Amino acid sequence: MAVKEIDINCDMGESFGDYSFGSDEKIFPYITSCNVACGFHAGDPVHIEQTLRQAKAHGVKIGAHPSYPDLKGFGRRYLKMAPAELYASVKYQISAIKGMAESMGMKLSYVKPHGALYHVVSDDESEAHTMLQAIRDIDDQLYVVGLAGSPMKSIADQASIKFVSEAFADRRYMPNGRLLPRTIPGAVLIAPSEVAAQVVSLVMEQRVLDEKNEYLTVEAETICLHSDHPKIHHIVKAIDEALAERNIPKLAFSS
Amino acid sequence: MAVKEIDINCDMGESFGDYSFGSDEKIFPYITSCNVACGFHAGDPVHIEQTLRQAKAHGVKIGAHPSYPDLKGFGRRYLKMAPAELYASVKYQISAIKGMAESMGMKLSYVKPHGALYHVVSDDESEAHTMLQAIRDIDDQLYVVGLAGSPMKSIADQASIKFVSEAFADRRYMPNGRLLPRTIPGAVLIAPSEVAAQVVSLVMEQRVLDEKNEYLTVEAETICLHSDHPKIHHIVKAIDEALAERNIPKLAFSS
Amino acid sequence: MAVKEIDINCDMGESFGDYSFGSDEKIFPYITSCNVACGFHAGDPVHIEQTLRQAKAHGVKIGAHPSYPDLKGFGRRYLKMAPAELYASVKYQISAIKGMAESMGMKLSYVKPHGALYHVVSDDESEAHTMLQAIRDIDDQLYVVGLAGSPMKSIADQASIKFVSEAFADRRYMPNGRLLPRTIPGAVLIAPSEVAAQVVSLVMEQRVLDEKNEYLTVEAETICLHSDHPKIHHIVKAIDEALAERNIPKLAFSS
Amino acid sequence: MAVKEIDINCDMGESFGDYSFGSDEKIFPYITSCNVACGFHAGDPVHIEQTLRQAKAHGVKIGAHPSYPDLKGFGRRYLKMAPAELYASVKYQISAIKGMAESMGMKLSYVKPHGALYHVVSDDESEAHTMLQAIRDIDDQLYVVGLAGSPMKSIADQASIKFVSEAFADRRYMPNGRLLPRTIPGAVLIAPSEVAAQVVSLVMEQRVLDEKNEYLTVEAETICLHSDHPKIHHIVKAIDEALAERNIPKLAFSS
Repeated sequence: MAVKEIDINCDMGESFGDYSFGSDEKIFPYITSCNVACGFHAGDPVHIEQTLRQAKAHGVKIGAHPSYPDLKGFGRRYLKMAPAELYASVKYQISAIKGMAESMGMKLSYVKPHGALYHVVSDDESEAHTMLQAIRDIDDQLYVVGLAGSPMKSIADQASIKFVSEAFADRRYMPNGRLLPRTIPGAVLIAPSEVAAQVVSLVMEQRVLDEKNEYLTVEAETICLHSDHPKIHHIVKAIDEALAERNIPKLAFSS
Repeated sequence: MAVKEIDINCDMGESFGDYSFGSDEKIFPYITSCNVACGFHAGDPVHIEQTLRQAKAHGVKIGAHPSYPDLKGFGRRYLKMAPAELYASVKYQISAIKGMAESMGMKLSYVKPHGALYHVVSDDESEAHTMLQAIRDIDDQLYVVGLAGSPMKSIADQASIKFVSEAFADRRYMPNGRLLPRTIPGAVLIAPSEVAAQVVSLVMEQRVLDEKNEYLTVEAETICLHSDHPKIHHIVKAIDEALAERNIPKLAFSS
Repeated sequence: MAVKEIDINCDMGESFGDYSFGSDEKIFPYITSCNVACGFHAGDPVHIEQTLRQAKAHGVKIGAHPSYPDLKGFGRRYLKMAPAELYASVKYQISAIKGMAESMGMKLSYVKPHGALYHVVSDDESEAHTMLQAIRDIDDQLYVVGLAGSPMKSIADQASIKFVSEAFADRRYMPNGRLLPRTIPGAVLIAPSEVAAQVVSLVMEQRVLDEKNEYLTVEAETICLHSDHPKIHHIVKAIDEALAERNIPKLAFSS
Repeated sequence: MAVKEIDINCDMGESFGDYSFGSDEKIFPYITSCNVACGFHAGDPVHIEQTLRQAKAHGVKIGAHPSYPDLKGFGRRYLKMAPAELYASVKYQISAIKGMAESMGMKLSYVKPHGALYHVVSDDESEAHTMLQAIRDIDDQLYVVGLAGSPMKSIADQASIKFVSEAFADRRYMPNGRLLPRTIPGAVLIAPSEVAAQVVSLVMEQRVLDEKNEYLTVEAETICLHSDHPKIHHIVKAIDEALAERNIPKLAFSS
């Protein structure tokens, strides 16, 4: 399969009050889509506003990045919610980002669930359905970004939501196509060269080497970076060079 | 001056999690506009969703009710914010309500600031300007509800924001046209007959008896009730009867 | 087995800011122990202070009632915490109540975990161990209140923590000795006479009728009421009368 | 006046969840007292526990660092509280730190209010009185740290609370002895040599150069550093060298 281009997305706007997180301003030049924290796992109105302005300045596509309400746990812990609560929470968060983006003349393009919510909807049909219903009720043209190879794609298809398959540049995969949990050593790839190699492999060959050192097929339309990776400055450059060498342009999905 | 009709508004959706507040379902049949809590002083996504559904069922006009972020203080305490923070906080809250309302096929009509924010923008030109800018950047057709007789009207006029003058049914006025603070005994009128009489006086004569028992001119286009008033059930009925006797219809402003 | 007396405990101090919860002042005369909310699932410093004062006035024994940090979910949802976080969170909450009680010349007697934490430590040995370690590190003379018949008793025994077995006055039991979840109809007994009968059966016969209408042995040293039960005012009186008829005094455990 | 020694204090434990703040582990070797965040403006149980362990390992004196409840504003904004709320909030926070310290065999020595609360009690007799009452009701042997030269000293004296006068190493003073607000350029001294010089001047001559470049008398028993100062690593070393050159030992106050 000949690849024409790849979208690079990154979680942004995760600072809160006096707490800074990530190095957004250094990453914006290198990405094509940004997932904007909505204030539930991270972010606050000031940082959302600032992130949207930066996205506009850099011509970066905007997504809402809703989460379980858990600032202390950074949205990385599962929270059992009744469907009505999950539905309303997702709508609230997407609406906040959508309205703020539109107030600046921008358009919200997609939704990417964060952390524990991301992983739950990859697997749990009922919670995926609830979240997708919320997304569609806000705007049925919104894309949803989810784990490549997960059952969520077919749930999104049934709900007539456009699904964008995602792979991770800096995370080690398990043989079943899921990510090795962050609590396990080796879950995060550190060396920029290794991260860039995984990106190239994903883009050129639609596969990664998993934790067993076996090839795993991963067909992704967007690749995720993490703004708080300790070497993110080097990673964005290493990926850029690796893609440039192979004449693969970065381009926001569906552009 | 012949009065044709009056709008009755009430703060709604102020329950939070397992904490219930007010008796919204009993008040909805009696009001024409509802100020929906945005989650900063009260409310949460589940209760916002539920409040919007009730507003739709009752044909009640919807306003966003943004506040300082202070759940513990119910938004009743002033919080010094940098203009950028106030601006972004107001945009975030209005956007959340607007998007959720639109997802149900409803339209956000107005913004009414809550608690300490309401009183600050009645007086402080700089903070009023910041808030109005945020409102206009979301939607320049939104009305803003503010204290009748306050300087905010002229600030709104200059910003080309449509201002709706508000009076209070159950609060005692000071001679300067401001409300007697809640911490002072007598600040809240308790007897339903007294509240209804103040409404009639406001509607028919554009005046109230202030704490000195002198008449004070108050020209209001909307009158505010409080859902947590201990006698709210009797108050809504007493007002209804008093208005019906005088053939004054309730009607949302600008309808 | 001849019963000499029974302790009646109740969750108290669960109001937050302007949100009131339960009817503490009406319940205090009828209980012998109170579980004081610590601010994580409910409660705030003002209401904690007020609750401790009431406990002192009524001569009621004081326990800390720590929870997962989840005001929105009232501590009723499981939150996966690393052991270090669970340990520190429990210590923080107990310390806050202990210090405030001691500042009034009172003594903290016990700890009763709240909501989801209560149920998790009834079953999960690892989380129970972490919580018990935190309790013992604060004060090894503190009692811990837990579900009668659960494995937690033996875990507490091993940790040399004094365990107090608890039964519930107004909750339906499953045949395995656990409570029917609140989400299931019939989980909460409503009629005061039925609640009083369950208390009498627990005290006199150490058993309850479970959801299958079979007798289940429950040996409890304390019985829990809920301050937000819709008929709590009648329940406390019905229990009082039922116990008085049988000459069973109420007395705080270990008194 | 011959100076025998000086106490160096620093705000510590201000990280929250995944948000890190300051570089505590690098500063601990250089300080003699640490002000432990209590979770209201910053900090959480995990970071409090960790900070107390570090303090123990380094033999550093422990103080509680209570604040207004305002994570978003880092406790730097005034919040109007009723006396009962301020009183209970301060007691809650001190109790949490005190209990956790004692569980590790340590002793809480003092209280230093944070941010806006610090500045309010420097001036407002009523709020100072309320806070001091809370401190004394927890433990009448606790010291309170406050701004050198402020009226709080005499209020503390009247309340029989031991007052420790504090000066700031890296903040510019106004001629009235108050700090130039952070929002004004030049409020924070940046160059480590300049900070060290201010410390030496405070210790040797009990004076600083204020913003008008005039000498201002400041008699301080403890000097405050800020863990989030961009050059804190160099500052602690520069101060250390400057004090060593002059044979001034660092020693916790009242040791």
